[in-house]
Amino acid sequence: MKKLINNPDDFVRESLEGMALAHPELIKVHFDPNFIYRADAPIANKVALVSGGGSGHEPMHGGFVGMGMLDAACPGEVFTSPTPDQMLAAAKMVNSSAGVLNIVKNYSGDVMNFELAAELALSEGIQVANILIDDDVAVKDSLYTQGRRGVGTTILAEKICGAAADRGYNLPQLADLCRRVNLNGRSMGMALTSCTPPAKGSPMFELGDREIEFGIGIHGEPGRKRLPLASADEIAEMLARSIIEDRDYTRTLREWNEDKEEWVELEITDPPLQAGDRVLALVNSMGGTPLSELYIIYRKLAQICAQENIQIVRNLVGAYITSLEMQGCSITLLKLDDELLQLWDAPVKTPALRWGA
Amino acid sequence: MKKLINNPDDFVRESLEGMALAHPELIKVHFDPNFIYRADAPIANKVALVSGGGSGHEPMHGGFVGMGMLDAACPGEVFTSPTPDQMLAAAKMVNSSAGVLNIVKNYSGDVMNFELAAELALSEGIQVANILIDDDVAVKDSLYTQGRRGVGTTILAEKICGAAADRGYNLPQLADLCRRVNLNGRSMGMALTSCTPPAKGSPMFELGDREIEFGIGIHGEPGRKRLPLASADEIAEMLARSIIEDRDYTRTLREWNEDKEEWVELEITDPPLQAGDRVLALVNSMGGTPLSELYIIYRKLAQICAQENIQIVRNLVGAYITSLEMQGCSITLLKLDDELLQLWDAPVKTPALRWGA
Repeated sequence: MKKLINNPDDFVRESLEGMALAHPELIKVHFDPNFIYRADAPIANKVALVSGGGSGHEPMHGGFVGMGMLDAACPGEVFTSPTPDQMLAAAKMVNSSAGVLNIVKNYSGDVMNFELAAELALSEGIQVANILIDDDVAVKDSLYTQGRRGVGTTILAEKICGAAADRGYNLPQLADLCRRVNLNGRSMGMALTSCTPPAKGSPMFELGDREIEFGIGIHGEPGRKRLPLASADEIAEMLARSIIEDRDYTRTLREWNEDKEEWVELEITDPPLQAGDRVLALVNSMGGTPLSELYIIYRKLAQICAQENIQIVRNLVGAYITSLEMQGCSITLLKLDDELLQLWDAPVKTPALRWGA
Repeated sequence: MKKLINNPDDFVRESLEGMALAHPELIKVHFDPNFIYRADAPIANKVALVSGGGSGHEPMHGGFVGMGMLDAACPGEVFTSPTPDQMLAAAKMVNSSAGVLNIVKNYSGDVMNFELAAELALSEGIQVANILIDDDVAVKDSLYTQGRRGVGTTILAEKICGAAADRGYNLPQLADLCRRVNLNGRSMGMALTSCTPPAKGSPMFELGDREIEFGIGIHGEPGRKRLPLASADEIAEMLARSIIEDRDYTRTLREWNEDKEEWVELEITDPPLQAGDRVLALVNSMGGTPLSELYIIYRKLAQICAQENIQIVRNLVGAYITSLEMQGCSITLLKLDDELLQLWDAPVKTPALRWGA
């Protein structure tokens, strides 16, 4: 294992310490329990946005804490869900009385722990809503997931809801908005290589010299299929087609119902992408793939979208939701309307995403 | 070779096409000869900043074209100098009558070609100054270099001079400023792994499972020495000490003298870093190293600087000057004064660096 680390047991803590040292004007880090939060939290009268998940996906989520995006992020150990005590402590730190929106990627551990944390917060008088992100079209169920996994749309939801919270959306409005972003977003990824968690010391999975994993999960979970190495254009085509041709996915979501004071199940269906739609396109590195290659993928994606009369009106090309040093990429297409577009364009100032401020 | 590419011969062109498609509001790409330029160039009465070098170091330089930074960038083939015709065409496209500052990394091919391009531009009535960046303290001479190599300080010079050009600095003032940034900047890098240029199809060099190359060049040129794999803290310490303890480096620079109308040689010496200095710290990924590990390096660097009473007042942590998918990192420390600090903080809006706009 070749990494810039010290003792693998200190990986997450030392990385968080470095982050805190690098960005004191934007964030603070609380240790034991671990969470990253806005240096100026809580913001009066603003709904606080909290997310979290296993470490190893940086800059997600800690890199997205700051003005116009998250109020706090709870990092677990590498590829391991954070615990309810982290989430509760983060909620208490950033809640201003306007409540807390938890943006939760759909992995069983994250979902369970964020539900527990929400119940604990509710019992302490904090208004909470949990919204799941399950945008990965690759597989229906997976190693750590019932239903689809949450991937690239997560950070788009964090940005868009962060801007909306700044504009004064209340908690039910933000929950609706976040749910809408999730329904409008679809992702698909692939791996050229595996990755090695520091504490494990060996690759998550083996992949032959001429093989790729198509539909990979961000923890190295198996995807749709293992394929022979293909060209960038073929890979972009396979990823884009999987997204564009995905139709009528219906999931059952559990959400907290305030009136009934219980978790209720909602059945909702994604609106499919159609000719004439405007989208935000995210071309994301899994961590070890250089920018030059991402632009080659973007080039083909732009050609495909043009053919399909899907208009890419915004894009993001870079390493935003990663799997340590894994080589590979993912594509996310998020269908936009005027509201989502304006919220996307609003100023943001975080360690990993910044414009207009 | 596992990469997101099509035909290796099309790697640079397709990557540039993708970049142009992704950032039409910021940049345009001219093909044959290849250069990236500001979508709104030329800017009246502003000195134009041009840089360039081999591809494979993305986002450098094309990702730094835009408001507040470069006016144009000339990408060569992977790890290969661009040609004088690219540089001349770029200069003609972006020159507004205020002249062109070429920021040139000290590699023999780049230096020779930028000198030829400058002579051609001068003969066409364009005012030109070439300033070399030679900030890599690792080795005195190298595979492609006489004197020290140009690395991380290059992008800091591009940002700072870009802001100064926006503020109306004339060409001699910008040349002085750029020279000062170079003298105040020092860098050192290391590799955990090699990298594979697409057209070559095999690694640039071999590195054992338990070896690192200390003082690596950005084209995989040999560094100071090959060492056994070390911890992040040990690596950060070696890199930082090499920079902080570097003293009295004197180089002979060739610069165009307008009065004499000939190239003249200047002997200049770096001012050493001292206790009490304020610095900008860049912790840079060689391409394949994830952000989480860079923060572990930053953590140790911040501790060392605190011990030495060197105050890090600004920092940049990420992949800015890379060697394809190479794993490893480099550190750059740039000594700041009030002028450099203000220029660093000025708004910038490019594909790879953006704030305040």
